[in-house]
Amino acid sequence: MGDERMVRIAEIEVHPDQLDAYSLLLAEEIVASVEREPGVLMLHAVAHKDAPHYIRILEVYASQDAYQTHIETPHFLKYKLGTADMVTGLRLIEVDPILLAAK
Amino acid sequence: MGDERMVRIAEIEVHPDQLDAYSLLLAEEIVASVEREPGVLMLHAVAHKDAPHYIRILEVYASQDAYQTHIETPHFLKYKLGTADMVTGLRLIEVDPILLAAK
Repeated sequence: MGDERMVRIAEIEVHPDQLDAYSLLLAEEIVASVEREPGVLMLHAVAHKDAPHYIRILEVYASQDAYQTHIETPHFLKYKLGTADMVTGLRLIEVDPILLAAK
Repeated sequence: MGDERMVRIAEIEVHPDQLDAYSLLLAEEIVASVEREPGVLMLHAVAHKDAPHYIRILEVYASQDAYQTHIETPHFLKYKLGTADMVTGLRLIEVDPILLAAK
Protein backbone atom coordinates (compact mmCIF):
# COMPACT_ATOMS: atom_id res chain seq x y z
CA MET A 1 0.00 0.00 0.00
CA GLY A 2 2.96 2.37 0.36
CA ASP A 3 1.28 3.11 3.64
CA GLU A 4 3.48 4.44 6.45
CA ARG A 5 0.68 4.41 8.97
CA MET A 6 1.06 2.35 12.09
CA VAL A 7 -2.21 0.69 13.06
CA ARG A 8 -2.74 -1.29 16.19
CA ILE A 9 -5.36 -2.75 18.47
CA ALA A 10 -4.78 -2.57 22.20
CA GLU A 11 -6.72 -5.07 24.29
CA ILE A 12 -6.70 -3.89 27.87
CA GLU A 13 -8.15 -5.43 30.99
CA VAL A 14 -8.75 -3.11 33.91
CA HIS A 15 -9.52 -3.82 37.54
CA PRO A 16 -13.34 -3.53 37.62
CA ASP A 17 -13.27 -1.35 40.75
CA GLN A 18 -11.11 1.17 38.95
CA LEU A 19 -12.95 1.32 35.67
CA ASP A 20 -14.35 4.83 36.14
CA ALA A 21 -11.00 6.28 37.14
CA TYR A 22 -9.30 4.46 34.30
CA SER A 23 -11.83 5.66 31.70
CA LEU A 24 -11.38 9.28 32.76
CA LEU A 25 -7.60 9.08 32.44
CA LEU A 26 -7.88 7.31 29.09
CA ALA A 27 -10.35 9.84 27.69
CA GLU A 28 -8.15 12.73 28.84
CA GLU A 29 -5.15 11.15 27.15
CA ILE A 30 -7.05 10.53 23.91
CA VAL A 31 -8.30 14.11 23.69
CA ALA A 32 -4.83 15.52 24.32
CA SER A 33 -3.15 13.18 21.84
CA VAL A 34 -5.54 13.72 18.92
CA GLU A 35 -5.72 17.49 19.51
CA ARG A 36 -2.03 18.18 20.06
CA GLU A 37 -0.11 15.56 18.09
CA PRO A 38 -0.13 15.83 14.29
CA GLY A 39 0.89 12.18 14.05
CA VAL A 40 -1.91 10.71 16.15
CA LEU A 41 -4.64 10.16 13.57
CA MET A 42 -7.16 8.07 15.45
CA LEU A 43 -7.80 6.65 18.91
CA HIS A 44 -11.11 4.82 19.16
CA ALA A 45 -11.67 3.34 22.60
CA VAL A 46 -14.59 1.05 23.44
CA ALA A 47 -15.60 -1.18 26.33
CA HIS A 48 -17.33 -4.54 26.12
CA LYS A 49 -20.99 -4.01 26.94
CA ASP A 50 -21.21 -7.17 29.03
CA ALA A 51 -17.81 -6.77 30.68
CA PRO A 52 -16.86 -3.10 30.60
CA HIS A 53 -13.48 -3.70 32.20
CA TYR A 54 -12.44 -5.18 28.84
CA ILE A 55 -11.27 -2.21 26.79
CA ARG A 56 -10.28 -2.18 23.14
CA ILE A 57 -8.55 0.72 21.40
CA LEU A 58 -8.07 1.03 17.65
CA GLU A 59 -5.01 3.24 17.23
CA VAL A 60 -3.75 4.87 14.02
CA TYR A 61 -0.49 6.83 13.92
CA ALA A 62 0.94 8.56 10.85
CA SER A 63 4.18 6.58 11.14
CA GLN A 64 6.36 4.65 13.54
CA ASP A 65 8.12 7.93 14.33
CA ALA A 66 4.80 9.53 15.22
CA TYR A 67 4.13 6.67 17.62
CA GLN A 68 7.55 7.04 19.19
CA THR A 69 6.90 10.76 19.69
CA HIS A 70 3.49 9.94 21.17
CA ILE A 71 4.76 7.65 23.91
CA GLU A 72 7.21 10.29 25.10
CA THR A 73 4.63 13.05 25.54
CA PRO A 74 3.68 14.27 29.03
CA HIS A 75 0.00 13.41 28.46
CA PHE A 76 0.80 9.83 27.46
CA LEU A 77 3.18 9.39 30.38
CA LYS A 78 0.55 10.78 32.76
CA TYR A 79 -1.92 8.16 31.48
CA LYS A 80 0.62 5.34 31.49
CA LEU A 81 1.88 6.01 35.00
CA GLY A 82 -1.53 6.98 36.35
CA THR A 83 -3.17 3.77 35.18
CA ALA A 84 -0.29 1.35 35.79
CA ASP A 85 -1.89 -0.10 38.91
CA MET A 86 -5.34 -0.28 37.32
CA VAL A 87 -4.37 -2.35 34.28
CA THR A 88 -4.36 -6.10 34.86
CA GLY A 89 -3.84 -7.18 31.26
CA LEU A 90 -2.48 -5.65 28.07
CA ARG A 91 -2.17 -7.18 24.61
CA LEU A 92 -0.95 -5.11 21.68
CA ILE A 93 -1.84 -6.43 18.23
CA GLU A 94 -0.14 -4.95 15.17
CA VAL A 95 -2.60 -4.83 12.31
CA ASP A 96 -2.81 -3.73 8.69
CA PRO A 97 -5.79 -1.73 7.52
CA ILE A 98 -8.03 -3.42 4.97
CA LEU A 99 -10.21 -0.33 4.77
CA LEU A 100 -10.93 2.43 7.29
CA ALA A 101 -14.13 4.17 6.22
CA ALA A 102 -16.17 6.70 8.16
CA LYS A 103 -18.54 9.59 7.50
CA MET B 1 -24.76 8.96 27.38
CA GLY B 2 -28.13 9.37 25.62
CA ASP B 3 -26.26 7.78 22.75
CA GLU B 4 -28.37 5.82 20.25
CA ARG B 5 -25.36 4.60 18.33
CA MET B 6 -24.80 0.89 18.02
CA VAL B 7 -21.11 0.07 18.25
CA ARG B 8 -19.68 -3.37 17.74
CA ILE B 9 -16.50 -5.26 17.10
CA ALA B 10 -16.63 -8.19 14.69
CA GLU B 11 -13.84 -10.74 15.05
CA ILE B 12 -13.72 -12.80 11.90
CA GLU B 13 -11.51 -15.71 10.95
CA VAL B 14 -11.20 -16.44 7.26
CA HIS B 15 -9.80 -19.45 5.44
CA PRO B 16 -6.21 -18.33 4.66
CA ASP B 17 -6.43 -19.47 1.03
CA GLN B 18 -9.41 -17.20 0.49
CA LEU B 19 -8.11 -14.11 2.20
CA ASP B 20 -7.63 -12.04 -0.96
CA ALA B 21 -11.08 -12.85 -2.29
CA TYR B 22 -12.59 -12.17 1.12
CA SER B 23 -10.83 -8.83 1.50
CA LEU B 24 -12.07 -7.64 -1.88
CA LEU B 25 -15.68 -8.51 -1.05
CA LEU B 26 -15.36 -6.90 2.38
CA ALA B 27 -13.86 -3.69 0.99
CA GLU B 28 -16.58 -3.47 -1.65
CA GLU B 29 -19.24 -3.89 1.00
CA ILE B 30 -17.69 -1.26 3.27
CA VAL B 31 -17.46 1.33 0.50
CA ALA B 32 -21.07 0.75 -0.53
CA SER B 33 -22.37 0.84 3.03
CA VAL B 34 -20.61 4.03 4.14
CA GLU B 35 -21.35 5.83 0.87
CA ARG B 36 -24.99 4.84 0.47
CA GLU B 37 -26.39 4.32 3.94
CA PRO B 38 -26.94 7.39 6.12
CA GLY B 39 -26.99 5.16 9.21
CA VAL B 40 -23.64 3.45 8.66
CA LEU B 41 -21.22 5.83 10.35
CA MET B 42 -18.01 3.83 10.45
CA LEU B 43 -16.59 0.51 9.30
CA HIS B 44 -12.91 0.13 10.12
CA ALA B 45 -11.54 -3.23 9.02
CA VAL B 46 -8.04 -4.43 9.88
CA ALA B 47 -6.11 -7.69 9.65
CA HIS B 48 -3.59 -9.02 12.14
CA LYS B 49 -0.12 -8.38 10.75
CA ASP B 50 1.19 -11.77 11.84
CA ALA B 51 -1.96 -13.71 10.93
CA PRO B 52 -3.87 -11.74 8.29
CA HIS B 53 -6.73 -14.22 8.19
CA TYR B 54 -7.76 -12.78 11.56
CA ILE B 55 -9.92 -9.77 10.71
CA ARG B 56 -11.36 -7.22 13.10
CA ILE B 57 -13.98 -4.65 12.20
CA LEU B 58 -15.01 -1.71 14.36
CA GLU B 59 -18.57 -0.91 13.34
CA VAL B 60 -20.61 2.17 14.24
CA TYR B 61 -24.24 2.52 13.23
CA ALA B 62 -26.47 5.51 13.99
CA SER B 63 -29.00 3.28 15.75
CA GLN B 64 -30.29 -0.27 16.01
CA ASP B 65 -32.73 0.59 13.21
CA ALA B 66 -29.87 1.72 11.00
CA TYR B 67 -28.17 -1.62 11.61
CA GLN B 68 -31.34 -3.52 10.77
CA THR B 69 -31.63 -1.55 7.54
CA HIS B 70 -27.97 -2.28 6.78
CA ILE B 71 -28.22 -6.04 6.99
CA GLU B 72 -31.12 -6.06 4.54
CA THR B 73 -29.32 -4.12 1.80
CA PRO B 74 -28.28 -5.83 -1.44
CA HIS B 75 -24.60 -4.93 -0.91
CA PHE B 76 -24.55 -6.46 2.58
CA LEU B 77 -26.34 -9.59 1.40
CA LYS B 78 -23.88 -9.91 -1.50
CA TYR B 79 -21.00 -9.80 1.00
CA LYS B 80 -22.68 -12.14 3.47
CA LEU B 81 -23.60 -14.78 0.92
CA GLY B 82 -20.43 -14.35 -1.11
CA THR B 83 -18.15 -14.88 1.90
CA ALA B 84 -20.20 -17.53 3.71
CA ASP B 85 -17.89 -20.36 2.67
CA MET B 86 -14.75 -18.31 3.38
CA VAL B 87 -15.52 -17.45 6.99
CA THR B 88 -14.46 -20.07 9.51
CA GLY B 89 -15.14 -18.08 12.67
CA LEU B 90 -17.26 -15.10 13.67
CA ARG B 91 -17.58 -13.42 17.05
CA LEU B 92 -19.68 -10.29 17.47
CA ILE B 93 -18.92 -8.16 20.53
CA GLU B 94 -21.32 -5.41 21.53
CA VAL B 95 -19.37 -2.47 22.92
CA ASP B 96 -19.92 1.00 24.32
CA PRO B 97 -17.74 3.84 23.13
CA ILE B 98 -15.49 5.41 25.73
CA LEU B 99 -14.24 7.96 23.22
CA LEU B 100 -13.97 7.82 19.43
CA ALA B 101 -11.51 10.50 18.35
CA ALA B 102 -9.98 11.04 14.91
CA LYS B 103 -8.55 13.82 12.81
